[in-house]
Amino acid sequence: MSRAYNFCAGPAALPEPVLRQARDEMLDWRGTGMSVMEMSHRSDEFVEIAETAEKDLRELAGISDDYAVLFMQGGASGQFATVPLNLLGENTRVDYVNTGIWSKKAIAEAKRYATVNVAASSEDRGFTTVPDQSEWNTSADAAYLHYTPNETIGGLEYDFVPDSGRVPLVADMSSNILSRPVDVNRFGLIYAGAQKNIGPSGLVVVIIRKDLLGRARPETPTMMNYQVMADNASMYNTPATYSWYLAGLVFKWLKEQGGVDAMEALNYRKSKKLYDYIDASGFYANPIEPRFRSWMNVPFTLADDSLNGAFLKGADERGLLNLEGHRSVGGMRASIYNAMPEAGVDALIDYMAGFVKEHG
Amino acid sequence: MSRAYNFCAGPAALPEPVLRQARDEMLDWRGTGMSVMEMSHRSDEFVEIAETAEKDLRELAGISDDYAVLFMQGGASGQFATVPLNLLGENTRVDYVNTGIWSKKAIAEAKRYATVNVAASSEDRGFTTVPDQSEWNTSADAAYLHYTPNETIGGLEYDFVPDSGRVPLVADMSSNILSRPVDVNRFGLIYAGAQKNIGPSGLVVVIIRKDLLGRARPETPTMMNYQVMADNASMYNTPATYSWYLAGLVFKWLKEQGGVDAMEALNYRKSKKLYDYIDASGFYANPIEPRFRSWMNVPFTLADDSLNGAFLKGADERGLLNLEGHRSVGGMRASIYNAMPEAGVDALIDYMAGFVKEHG
Repeated sequence: MSRAYNFCAGPAALPEPVLRQARDEMLDWRGTGMSVMEMSHRSDEFVEIAETAEKDLRELAGISDDYAVLFMQGGASGQFATVPLNLLGENTRVDYVNTGIWSKKAIAEAKRYATVNVAASSEDRGFTTVPDQSEWNTSADAAYLHYTPNETIGGLEYDFVPDSGRVPLVADMSSNILSRPVDVNRFGLIYAGAQKNIGPSGLVVVIIRKDLLGRARPETPTMMNYQVMADNASMYNTPATYSWYLAGLVFKWLKEQGGVDAMEALNYRKSKKLYDYIDASGFYANPIEPRFRSWMNVPFTLADDSLNGAFLKGADERGLLNLEGHRSVGGMRASIYNAMPEAGVDALIDYMAGFVKEHG
Repeated sequence: MSRAYNFCAGPAALPEPVLRQARDEMLDWRGTGMSVMEMSHRSDEFVEIAETAEKDLRELAGISDDYAVLFMQGGASGQFATVPLNLLGENTRVDYVNTGIWSKKAIAEAKRYATVNVAASSEDRGFTTVPDQSEWNTSADAAYLHYTPNETIGGLEYDFVPDSGRVPLVADMSSNILSRPVDVNRFGLIYAGAQKNIGPSGLVVVIIRKDLLGRARPETPTMMNYQVMADNASMYNTPATYSWYLAGLVFKWLKEQGGVDAMEALNYRKSKKLYDYIDASGFYANPIEPRFRSWMNVPFTLADDSLNGAFLKGADERGLLNLEGHRSVGGMRASIYNAMPEAGVDALIDYMAGFVKEHG
């Protein structure tokens, strides 16, 4: 098969030029006689790769020197513990907003370390909306306020950045980082598992305001201590070097595409045409309140669930892969991250329309 | 440059056939139209890759069904905390043997969670030997006995497996796993960062006797809980999928080479000829008691330290890379893991001999 359109929620499709470059450099990075994955993390070559990746990310996301950028391991799920361990300090109370399955996972892990106040939840509305911030029951003395800007499974995305006052705002941006501009200065901490918009799995990027460093609780494993990681430029121990390199290639590619502004325009177009088609189809449906529909993850159901198997089989045959919805919600889901070209969305809509003609 | 001989201590050289296969499969794994790094970790394709890697590792290392094999993140340094958090149970006392810098790091992290009894140490002898086990001050009620079979920095390797009685034996095998046969049944737990003999960094393999699962302390981050990882086949969250795939390619390559027995013969030959040359040279020196010289990491000094720069420069020019010793000990170090062909050691010895003729 030639390259397919891969709608997987994560690990997800990477830009083809990135994969081509990685392929071409696999046995010999720029005449060094080594693959990047064979380089000492302390070598001049790798340090340059690592620093360039950070610099490009800072430029793309508009990250000031008030923030440290960390390249850690353990994914977002690791951060679910790392965040409270590092940010609680002497405090015991934290605020979380519950808008879906990933919010719930973050809350469950935080409860093991802190008293979690669920400041707002849309669970009673099936996670189809984001509670209006005027109704949030936040506390002025919380160690932080945590939310999930994009729920990968539900396909729900905030269209605003919450106002957390003087309480540090913490966001799990795993599935929408770099997909459109965000004012980083509004946040105390942003974390993102790499395997959607950044690179391969096994890497998690953390952006933390420097005044929040140095508060880790005594039981924090050293590998999870943000201060230690910041002091050592994320090389306290051997980092995930090859994933870091690939993230750097993705950042370069993003810059070549025009950066996050260009991604915003593209992602808006891609998601709008897919939602517009779904709404007009009379056959497919998406349950999310339109204002909060995710630009990254588009779940949809068929008018008749018994056709799901035929839909997926036909899609596979056309190279439209991994459209099955998450096992917890069923139906379909098209994840259309930065690396999904508009032609992939067009091909999906074509297929969906053809399927309706045949089965609708 | 064509492929160099890379003597880096880690991340280290990988077998060239592994890199070639990874290169060839980068954009399309076996007609799927996807790179392995773009696959869902829950897809049939990736689960097969993951299970095959585990099966091959079990076959190579002789791991019985009494043991779980985990593919985790965070490297050996992460395990320095993960081990006590999971194995202490109600106990507070653990035994460690100190034979070098990596032992010391493991001890420092364990002290944050437990009362560490350093049962034996060769620090007063400059870590040039392993204390005789008859002198070890171990405790029958320790939660476990931890040692470092191969000290990557010092170049010290145990030539025996300690007898820990009924206390579980724990080993950091990062730098010598799969380099020669080991009776896994002697161990409670083995861990190994991948970036020396297994694959790229960002992956750590844990082999744990199943009766040691389920003892994690309450504060253990879920991502570090061996029981959770075992229950979920290391896919509680998204694992480092691409590193896992590459590890699988390395295991296949090892099997094609004749497995761990063949590696033992090769590694013995490679290290013996290098040590024999060093001892006979009258110019180079290795300080380790011969019985405990590492087959994997061969540190050596020149008769005149002021020649170090010239030695390294000449080596680089000949494609003999990363021979500089660790910053904490100086001198030179040749790491000659499984993937280093015998021809690489021959080329190094040729260069060393030529250097003596010119400068000795």
